[in-house]
Amino acid sequence: MSKSDFGLIGLAVMGQNLVLNVESRGFTVSVYNRTTSTMEKFIADNPGKKLVGCETLEEFVQSLERPRKVMIMVQAGGPVDKVIESLLPYLEEGDIVIDGGNSLWTDTERRDAWLSEKGLRFIGAGVSGGEEGALKGPSIMPGGPTSTWEVMKPIFESISAKVDGVPCVTHIGEGGAGHFVKMVHNGIEYGDMQLICEAYNIFKAAGFSNEELADIFAEWNEGDLESFLIEITANIFKQKDPETGKDIVDLIVDKAGQKGTGRWTVMGSVEQAVPFSTIAGSVEARIISSMRDQRKAASQIFEGPNNWSFELKGLSKEDLVKKVRNALYASKIVSYAQGLDLIAKVGKDKGWSLDLGAIARIWRGGCIIRARFLNRITEAYEENPNLVNLMLAPFFTEILNKGQQDWREVVSIAALNGIPVPSFGGSLSYYDAYRAERLPANLLQAQRDFFGAHTYERIDKPEGEFFHTEDWPDLIK
Amino acid sequence: MSKSDFGLIGLAVMGQNLVLNVESRGFTVSVYNRTTSTMEKFIADNPGKKLVGCETLEEFVQSLERPRKVMIMVQAGGPVDKVIESLLPYLEEGDIVIDGGNSLWTDTERRDAWLSEKGLRFIGAGVSGGEEGALKGPSIMPGGPTSTWEVMKPIFESISAKVDGVPCVTHIGEGGAGHFVKMVHNGIEYGDMQLICEAYNIFKAAGFSNEELADIFAEWNEGDLESFLIEITANIFKQKDPETGKDIVDLIVDKAGQKGTGRWTVMGSVEQAVPFSTIAGSVEARIISSMRDQRKAASQIFEGPNNWSFELKGLSKEDLVKKVRNALYASKIVSYAQGLDLIAKVGKDKGWSLDLGAIARIWRGGCIIRARFLNRITEAYEENPNLVNLMLAPFFTEILNKGQQDWREVVSIAALNGIPVPSFGGSLSYYDAYRAERLPANLLQAQRDFFGAHTYERIDKPEGEFFHTEDWPDLIK
Repeated sequence: MSKSDFGLIGLAVMGQNLVLNVESRGFTVSVYNRTTSTMEKFIADNPGKKLVGCETLEEFVQSLERPRKVMIMVQAGGPVDKVIESLLPYLEEGDIVIDGGNSLWTDTERRDAWLSEKGLRFIGAGVSGGEEGALKGPSIMPGGPTSTWEVMKPIFESISAKVDGVPCVTHIGEGGAGHFVKMVHNGIEYGDMQLICEAYNIFKAAGFSNEELADIFAEWNEGDLESFLIEITANIFKQKDPETGKDIVDLIVDKAGQKGTGRWTVMGSVEQAVPFSTIAGSVEARIISSMRDQRKAASQIFEGPNNWSFELKGLSKEDLVKKVRNALYASKIVSYAQGLDLIAKVGKDKGWSLDLGAIARIWRGGCIIRARFLNRITEAYEENPNLVNLMLAPFFTEILNKGQQDWREVVSIAALNGIPVPSFGGSLSYYDAYRAERLPANLLQAQRDFFGAHTYERIDKPEGEFFHTEDWPDLIK
Repeated sequence: MSKSDFGLIGLAVMGQNLVLNVESRGFTVSVYNRTTSTMEKFIADNPGKKLVGCETLEEFVQSLERPRKVMIMVQAGGPVDKVIESLLPYLEEGDIVIDGGNSLWTDTERRDAWLSEKGLRFIGAGVSGGEEGALKGPSIMPGGPTSTWEVMKPIFESISAKVDGVPCVTHIGEGGAGHFVKMVHNGIEYGDMQLICEAYNIFKAAGFSNEELADIFAEWNEGDLESFLIEITANIFKQKDPETGKDIVDLIVDKAGQKGTGRWTVMGSVEQAVPFSTIAGSVEARIISSMRDQRKAASQIFEGPNNWSFELKGLSKEDLVKKVRNALYASKIVSYAQGLDLIAKVGKDKGWSLDLGAIARIWRGGCIIRARFLNRITEAYEENPNLVNLMLAPFFTEILNKGQQDWREVVSIAALNGIPVPSFGGSLSYYDAYRAERLPANLLQAQRDFFGAHTYERIDKPEGEFFHTEDWPDLIK
């Protein structure tokens, strides 16, 4: 009996869809699930396909062609370790274990070392695209050694999304590089979603109907902002609730969930001392949204304009749409600049020699943040692989310079009208600080020297020479 | 020969000043420093004092009365572990080791377990107040077991700052509670300093002289905002450079340093899903300030108003001062609300039963964030120990409600005039989100359900019931 080309453990929706995707490319796939009935149902629901259902892990491993390729699609954290442990007795030298979940990249580094020690090969692979992407072609971000990537390349390239014929998968780098880049991808996804929500709040406050919103996002999707998230947003505004006939968006509770990758991205940036304001704004927005009972109580206590109602005054609806579009676009550039900064910083520290242009290229299709915009990022890094900041690429500089006045006005409108814009506002503060020849940190350094003798540099002395004022007025009471 | 009451290892300025402080309260103090000459110079510089200089750690330990009280004042991280390891051969059951540095609180938890296992007692104690505070009376935040606190209480209370006769020290809680609370204290300190810097930038942009600034801060220091940081800021603007005769603040380079506690606070908040925008704004501001070369280059490339120049237009200087004061005060309340949220959250998770009112009380004197304001916080928690959010205490609610309009105008002025205000703006977004009965997160949940089947709750169905839309338009290309 011939053996399977590929095996997958964990038949939740993502796992099932990945199996069907791999199988559809001509491979035979063995599957295993802890609850056997799930596996049996999956096999029964997919008759005539090259699938091998296995009831035990031993049977599963024995069914695979060597070197075995075992993909794990289970919940991140302890479950991944448990599955690996229970596989170990059956695996043999050179077999490949692929973790396709949203694992913390430092866990991936640990598992990589653990399995390498045992003569096995490990790939931590970020897989983005949701259910549909898994089935029809996700964006895949695999880490691990180059030699292992070479073995997996044919399968990964065949199942991934394609843009202009180019597969949305590339070898990211050693160790945990794949899961690290996937984490930042998700952080950027948080930022993109929050920016759309801030635009939505402003438009609704200005009295736009859901129909108008659907049209605005559909129109944006025809231009530079074309992206999966803008496109689904346009469609969400058209979706009716079958039960009530109302627009479904108006019936959904405003409590956002989050699973961790956005928070990890911000924690990573803070730890690495890389700016983080856009994504951080999106994470804080989700946190506060989840405190719905507190908000309801607070809304009766704290004064300020209602965030769902403001008067356009002199402004036309068309003007507002243009201004908000420019604010969103500029903030989005900042968000990607910050995310790519984090990737560059950690990549350098870890010695991963990451190719930022190639990373942007595999995000063009399959994944949640896929967007026309990513072509411009790829081009920017192709033109200048040592680009210090994405904003400095001429294409993006021009957009920022053209949009900055509108961006300011939108942040001002939001502040004056009680509309929280943590990501529009945080991005603008970043932009204005980044382009500030002089910041007020001289005062901060004076304070630090005053109370802690932390010393300071002087503008009239060479860089790297540090001074301390001994005679700050003695104020300690 | 009689033995010493207290021993201290690490004679940098903070260590030396703590020794002199303890000695001045009637205790005999043994001292040790890795570089013996530093110890010898310290002893020689302080003749006639009850100090015992020790050349070896064995001699140092033997010179102490049992149970020995050994305070370590060395750089956080590895050096603390090294000193503890080299002390271990000489210490005996029941001896007390106190780490008075800015250690990461999880390291303190680890060391607490390590030393307890050996029959020793460990205290991780946050000490705030800079050099002067160490000498004349710091705020002390000791963790560890209550029984150990009881032994240390007389010394800690005698050396700490006093406000209205009340010592600025209390037993914070078990394990790493002391260093954890000190970490958040430092995060709040970052926020306070950044808010002052944002005010400074706005005033200077509006054409205020350093003399005017000194007067403004001195005046603020007479009212509700009275605090150490406002007071030293007033004085910094008066300080001349002896070499050039110029105002020293104008000669200091705008690159802020940071040692980690501010970043740790933000990482802790993000990990715990507690809002963090004010302190996060201060951390990002320091990060960007340190990228001075990039900023100088960017200032020639990116368009927007100069952050050091704006026209008051209709506004009088007095009005601007009042508005900025209200923005600063409101942002400061948000910053403390967020910091205290983090303390409450982690305290609850760790079972530390922290007393937020008592923590605010010991911050009233000695430490860098000491302020009149902290009396109001203590009162708020005395009145309602279960206060859900500091902003909900009537005193603070009133200030926010009275100041919110000015706060909005200041954020708007800054946005329109190119002045980065990450902490004013981040705080306002938090305030507006917290008081929003409805946020745009319904759209975000729709997006998450669209691409990831993450489900959502409905406003017309009971809480805790989750729905999924199967027929979101099929858009995957």
